[in-house]
Amino acid sequence: MVTIHALEERILKEGRVLPGEVLKVGSFLNQQIDTALLTDMGSEIARLFGDAGVTKILTIESSGIAIAVAAGCALGVPVVFAKKHASNNMSGEVYSSSVFSYTHQKTFEVVVAAEYLKPDDNLLVVDDFLAKGGALNGLFDIIGQSGAKLVGAAIAIEKGFQGGGDALRAKGIRVESLAIIDSMTDTSLTFRKQ
Amino acid sequence: MVTIHALEERILKEGRVLPGEVLKVGSFLNQQIDTALLTDMGSEIARLFGDAGVTKILTIESSGIAIAVAAGCALGVPVVFAKKHASNNMSGEVYSSSVFSYTHQKTFEVVVAAEYLKPDDNLLVVDDFLAKGGALNGLFDIIGQSGAKLVGAAIAIEKGFQGGGDALRAKGIRVESLAIIDSMTDTSLTFRKQ
Repeated sequence: MVTIHALEERILKEGRVLPGEVLKVGSFLNQQIDTALLTDMGSEIARLFGDAGVTKILTIESSGIAIAVAAGCALGVPVVFAKKHASNNMSGEVYSSSVFSYTHQKTFEVVVAAEYLKPDDNLLVVDDFLAKGGALNGLFDIIGQSGAKLVGAAIAIEKGFQGGGDALRAKGIRVESLAIIDSMTDTSLTFRKQ
Repeated sequence: MVTIHALEERILKEGRVLPGEVLKVGSFLNQQIDTALLTDMGSEIARLFGDAGVTKILTIESSGIAIAVAAGCALGVPVVFAKKHASNNMSGEVYSSSVFSYTHQKTFEVVVAAEYLKPDDNLLVVDDFLAKGGALNGLFDIIGQSGAKLVGAAIAIEKGFQGGGDALRAKGIRVESLAIIDSMTDTSLTFRKQ
């Protein structure tokens, strides 16, 4: 796998470490999105999973949507996003799972209308961050309920030191992260060579 | 302005009218996103506002993000999205406004970190739906607080019969909607010719 060095450079230049091992990348990935970098990240995900037969991308609102759309445009497949609560324009059967958010320190329900995930889908899960893996495991649970096949997961930034990604890899799930941070303090970041 | 007829066709084919004048387009715009249609919609927004000197796009999570990213990629500008609550990776000064959601029948706070909106920005607001204009007015309020210039608003689907778009146009704000629905019942939709 080839790393997008531009992403690592932006993390080093603009990322800020907040209390609770939160990495703030609001200037280019969350809250404000650099669309040129985003397009490159989508292309890189398409390169990594281009031969995996992906039919659809699954992500989770809100911060996963931008990177998932970029990957979906590059792969030429639709994107489905799980909602964090059932809304009143969601009707009929749904799949749902409970997710603990490390960033927000609370548990919430994620919901997808059943009609958008089919047993013959090959699903790539895309998200902006991977820390302990709570969100991914919730989405994998939903994919299991739908009977669709999980192809793997593509992540923008993995906090490798929190172990979620490696735990999933140890279970045989293909997890590709465009940048993996192996250690993080207020003053230094170390990326995993990949 | 040229309408994207593909969008109108998809609304007619797959849109479903739910109680409370809710139009469900979850199969291609909300929850599931058709990335080919989305790319075309982004290109159309770029065509409409290509000469307006847009420096940044402002939208609101979650359902505005996909169309805003498509427009931002086509225009080559960054996208900022307002959050519906302050999060713990948002620090420092913020701009905020109260928005009443017609779809969810409740008022919520929208928040943008002040550092992402500058007085010399020319902002295009992009959203998926325009009904009574609550979300747009909240975003315009935030833009006013920042001192940035409002270029206009680009919307995927405007519910023209709810009047929000025309009220804004009457105030001199440029509002371009890719499809405007002038009447909507369980069995028929009429689009405004534009």
